[in-house]
Amino acid sequence: MSTDPGSAESAESVESRMAALYERDLTCRQLGIALDEVGSGRAVMRMRVGTDMVNGHGIAHGGYLFLLGDAAFSYACNSHGPVTLAQAAQVTFLAPVEPGDELVAEAVERVRSGRQGVYDVTVRDAVTGKVVAEFRGQSVTLASRPATG
Amino acid sequence: MSTDPGSAESAESVESRMAALYERDLTCRQLGIALDEVGSGRAVMRMRVGTDMVNGHGIAHGGYLFLLGDAAFSYACNSHGPVTLAQAAQVTFLAPVEPGDELVAEAVERVRSGRQGVYDVTVRDAVTGKVVAEFRGQSVTLASRPATG
Amino acid sequence: MSTDPGSAESAESVESRMAALYERDLTCRQLGIALDEVGSGRAVMRMRVGTDMVNGHGIAHGGYLFLLGDAAFSYACNSHGPVTLAQAAQVTFLAPVEPGDELVAEAVERVRSGRQGVYDVTVRDAVTGKVVAEFRGQSVTLASRPATG
Amino acid sequence: MSTDPGSAESAESVESRMAALYERDLTCRQLGIALDEVGSGRAVMRMRVGTDMVNGHGIAHGGYLFLLGDAAFSYACNSHGPVTLAQAAQVTFLAPVEPGDELVAEAVERVRSGRQGVYDVTVRDAVTGKVVAEFRGQSVTLASRPATG
Repeated sequence: MSTDPGSAESAESVESRMAALYERDLTCRQLGIALDEVGSGRAVMRMRVGTDMVNGHGIAHGGYLFLLGDAAFSYACNSHGPVTLAQAAQVTFLAPVEPGDELVAEAVERVRSGRQGVYDVTVRDAVTGKVVAEFRGQSVTLASRPATG
Repeated sequence: MSTDPGSAESAESVESRMAALYERDLTCRQLGIALDEVGSGRAVMRMRVGTDMVNGHGIAHGGYLFLLGDAAFSYACNSHGPVTLAQAAQVTFLAPVEPGDELVAEAVERVRSGRQGVYDVTVRDAVTGKVVAEFRGQSVTLASRPATG
Repeated sequence: MSTDPGSAESAESVESRMAALYERDLTCRQLGIALDEVGSGRAVMRMRVGTDMVNGHGIAHGGYLFLLGDAAFSYACNSHGPVTLAQAAQVTFLAPVEPGDELVAEAVERVRSGRQGVYDVTVRDAVTGKVVAEFRGQSVTLASRPATG
Repeated sequence: MSTDPGSAESAESVESRMAALYERDLTCRQLGIALDEVGSGRAVMRMRVGTDMVNGHGIAHGGYLFLLGDAAFSYACNSHGPVTLAQAAQVTFLAPVEPGDELVAEAVERVRSGRQGVYDVTVRDAVTGKVVAEFRGQSVTLASRPATG
């Protein structure tokens, strides 16, 4: 795992806080979404599309592609410490995904301005590297630090 | 269930095709997302937020709110017959949702133009009626009708 | 002009405040964008696409279609009194527009929740009624009322 | 001006085609939006906010910030040759802009997949470098090459 070297907080400290957040993140744990990397303003997550993650057309449900992007976004924007929530998000679907495919979502901070932030997440096929979805999230940071952070 | 009375196809026929689509929709069935109503260009779906649908902050994962909206969008835009896919979508989160809450998503067709369509989905708390998320989906219709439709 | 009859403020009062806002709105005045109607949470604006509003492909520049939608959104969300700004917006372009065409944008409030709001604007050809763009805006209301409102 | 060195087409050729497109782009010429740089999948444009580009609150109209981003997006996605149109776009406004401010918009291609493309445009204050808006555009390429391209 790596972090922004310019960050005031050590990489180990960011990872430790994010590991605690992940511990309580029952969605990611239940779906088998792994937190591969996390650092200041960035995160990489990984998910294998299960056979029960399809829609009526037999391809991966777009909701799960969004969820994976949203999860990576959440770790990237919470990496700074204070509780940060998704206020809005947009996703463009670029290629169909089949059950059994493994996906990697890489979230990068684009800008922070006051309590607002914009994060980009690219979702790729883990084997071919083909981009299957592009996600952009808009975050808002709450005033106080998390009680458990 | 009700349908657009102005539609050329009977309400029963739309419902029957959508029931077949739902039968193959393992995501919705596995998550307990019910198809309450479906008609020409519209759908209403219902989901109870499970205790394992939370994020690290202990509230419902935004990914599941999106997924519910996306599911209702999918039935609304596929109601016309030809296979129709989500090309892009945007969501605004308006209120936190707790595990145990029941949500209702109502999808309405806004406009169709050629192979493109725009659908709005409002996600509400089933008990209080409070809006928790507003979703907008952009659809694209494939050239051929579904083999199984 | 009409307003929401359920609004606490009189229609005349809303119209009067919005007329004052329009008086200072040099963008709309300079582009000839007329404020046809305004009420509580809604506005209708009208613009003729000038011959110098084209892009290099010879059709109306999408930026002006957005601008018209954004303008109607702004009057709709400022109709309640406190200064309200656009925080984000999304637009889907559905049909090309030619110079000389007259467009009508109708903005409707979808939901308000705390300081956040979501507004939908449909942009139509004034003659044919064809939808050329669908716009959705996300607003945020500032804490204080406008000094000049 | 610079271009992607890996592009099959020479930088001069891309610039020459884009200069021809700009010649017909009456919107940009009339608003004084300059095409600073253009290359394969990228463009940089510059605009000074005029005193008549304000809204009723006295700050730059969001419509013009979008228009600048949309213009840069358009040159970036048309740089490959075939006529390419905006299908949808999303913008997040991050800081107010005053009349007299000079803005620079930098458009970068994020991904192309078949006829679809996703482009990101960052709009900054030309003096301070502060990000004032983040724009994302979704493009669609028409089947044929431009008659005049």
